[in-house]
Amino acid sequence: MNCAIICIGTELLFGSTLNTNATFLSQQLNLLGFNVLYHLVVGDNPDRLKESIEYLRDKTDLIITTGGLGPTEDDLSKETIALVYNKKLLLNENARLKIQSYFESTGRVMPSNNIKQALLPEGSICFENSKGTAPGFGIKDGNKLIVSMPGPPKEMMNMWQEEIKPYLEKLSDEQYYSKTLRFFGIGESMLEEKLIRLIHGQSDPTYATYAKEGQCTLRITSKDIDVKKAKERVEKGIAKVNELVGQYIYSYDDEELADVVGRKLISKGLTVSAAESCTAGMFTSTLGNVSGISACLKQSFVTYSNEAKMSLLGVSRETIDKYTEVSPQTALEMARGLNKVTGSDICISVTGYAGPGGGTKENPVGTVYIGMVFGDKEEVIKLKRSNISRFSIRNYSVLAMLDLINKSL
Amino acid sequence: MNCAIICIGTELLFGSTLNTNATFLSQQLNLLGFNVLYHLVVGDNPDRLKESIEYLRDKTDLIITTGGLGPTEDDLSKETIALVYNKKLLLNENARLKIQSYFESTGRVMPSNNIKQALLPEGSICFENSKGTAPGFGIKDGNKLIVSMPGPPKEMMNMWQEEIKPYLEKLSDEQYYSKTLRFFGIGESMLEEKLIRLIHGQSDPTYATYAKEGQCTLRITSKDIDVKKAKERVEKGIAKVNELVGQYIYSYDDEELADVVGRKLISKGLTVSAAESCTAGMFTSTLGNVSGISACLKQSFVTYSNEAKMSLLGVSRETIDKYTEVSPQTALEMARGLNKVTGSDICISVTGYAGPGGGTKENPVGTVYIGMVFGDKEEVIKLKRSNISRFSIRNYSVLAMLDLINKSL
Repeated sequence: MNCAIICIGTELLFGSTLNTNATFLSQQLNLLGFNVLYHLVVGDNPDRLKESIEYLRDKTDLIITTGGLGPTEDDLSKETIALVYNKKLLLNENARLKIQSYFESTGRVMPSNNIKQALLPEGSICFENSKGTAPGFGIKDGNKLIVSMPGPPKEMMNMWQEEIKPYLEKLSDEQYYSKTLRFFGIGESMLEEKLIRLIHGQSDPTYATYAKEGQCTLRITSKDIDVKKAKERVEKGIAKVNELVGQYIYSYDDEELADVVGRKLISKGLTVSAAESCTAGMFTSTLGNVSGISACLKQSFVTYSNEAKMSLLGVSRETIDKYTEVSPQTALEMARGLNKVTGSDICISVTGYAGPGGGTKENPVGTVYIGMVFGDKEEVIKLKRSNISRFSIRNYSVLAMLDLINKSL
Repeated sequence: MNCAIICIGTELLFGSTLNTNATFLSQQLNLLGFNVLYHLVVGDNPDRLKESIEYLRDKTDLIITTGGLGPTEDDLSKETIALVYNKKLLLNENARLKIQSYFESTGRVMPSNNIKQALLPEGSICFENSKGTAPGFGIKDGNKLIVSMPGPPKEMMNMWQEEIKPYLEKLSDEQYYSKTLRFFGIGESMLEEKLIRLIHGQSDPTYATYAKEGQCTLRITSKDIDVKKAKERVEKGIAKVNELVGQYIYSYDDEELADVVGRKLISKGLTVSAAESCTAGMFTSTLGNVSGISACLKQSFVTYSNEAKMSLLGVSRETIDKYTEVSPQTALEMARGLNKVTGSDICISVTGYAGPGGGTKENPVGTVYIGMVFGDKEEVIKLKRSNISRFSIRNYSVLAMLDLINKSL
């Protein structure tokens, strides 16, 4: 079943509020196996709303609207929908009683304009609102359907869970199954180039790539009346992707890299410390957002200055003088020094030029060295990123540090 | 001028990502005096995109699209727009060179599919992309206009500021003047309550509040053919706001709190160090994103464990045993110890329960103590936040640390 979501509200067109309703309903409808083809936002303007409904009614089987069911003058969704579907508005006695008792329960007198909320298009299905006064409703139109919900997210989400979702579940035959894989170390266009034959030949499962700050993701989706069959097809797809680009995958369940690394550290009981220069605590902070990580992450150092690298980590002045502070030698000495000071199982260091100032001819802004000491293994890697912001260089460095640890676990 | 925003991307219809682009562009277009009448989201489907553009072209003077300009097979916005406006796609040599040098500067080979991004509709205006490879473009169509931008928010917002906004500004008669004030320490609803008479009586200037993670902002806007008059009205508005809630304002120019603090530290030549427990480096990392901060931020410590608090900062075992690690006493000893070890002008510490585990009856999750030693002044403050996530508690703690420093500068 193809569907459209129409969100009604001038505040959305002013940019005063994010359209979280469309995102929530999209997720929910996709889970039920509906194809969401359009989101549309219009203001509280009956003519434009009328035309929009007429336009999308032709193109879809189901329209869901949110907003414009309030008690005030400019709430005209119900009147407009009734007009499009050629229905009278009738007082729904049940709805009137509900609204009245809602006001009584909050100790307030019902303002007279709230009675308007108890009017419903004739022959419509009434959906109750347990978090507010405006009921929702549905109108069947041949084998098409329009469902109208209140705009405040709490009321809308609650009505969805309690009333609309159970109603729509009965209308859908196919179910969707989907997995989202996460990648580090490969760009979106390179990922797609490697998977081009899968993507080209796609019908079921489908493959869709997305870019995220420094990383990318791939969603593999299938649908079937029997969800087990959809699952099987997705799993076969994952196996093919694994063959082609398996070395870049860090999660098969849409997890953050820090969560993957944190979970492994916690389960293995390993401790980790960082000596951060250009990332200035961002690595430790990112890993520090994993709950339960305090068992593994006991201490870290931000050593921005050369003095701090020497006094706290024991990096030698000769190394810095000879190779500069942004060099594989300094990175390695930082990690070794950290190991001596903390005794943590994994000691990781980072030093680089995050810009916009700084950098040398050989090591321009975007050059970053990462050092690691883990047991008797020592490693140094070099990153080179340019034309990206200070934040992006730092963020990419943190991801590379997490990736290095992840691959050694 | 009436306009529509079309966001192209299947991920929006799946609900995988919030449509922040539509919100940003709505705010910006309204500031320029454009009426936004529609937001529309369609997937990477050329037929539906074509029909959508045709539908909205009739109803508006300006269409702005985002998304679908990537290098991959399913990026078809440009091809579709060229088709609707009856234009050939031609290789833009300038754009090709830009893309090639972008890849060269990142030390990567340009995948062959990226060449597609250098094709532009004939006769179109090219808008440069300084944050990525896909240029934007504009096509004039009589006295109507369509502008097409890349989908990744950073690229889109940057192109808006550098290229599209200056171009569109010339098309509008009335000019808007607007200032955005930033607040810390007051919630959005309290802010609105304090400003209710200004907001109610608003016609020009208008006052709009927005909530942001842990902070809130107020935008004051006026418009006039003579921008000087608009500016005067906004300045009068700011004076009124200052009288009512001036103590909570940290920026009159929509700056981040870290940028405000960083700028002050740099100009005063003060050094700062942090000893972070529950924030695990987030304070240092946040301040570390200010360019030029390395002159002030030489070293910091993440001391998650009690052992680290004792060995690195000299917190006494007695203090921790008697008062626990989440106490004003421990916070103060951390700051004092930090001062001894680093000699930094400002030494700030933080210890608390970020959850979801941990906490005690007296100090439940969300309790955070911040200590500061600055010259001969010592200070400890307590935060109490509940019903919010681990990330939000940590983020709020960082803001409170920055706010404490800001107020002492």
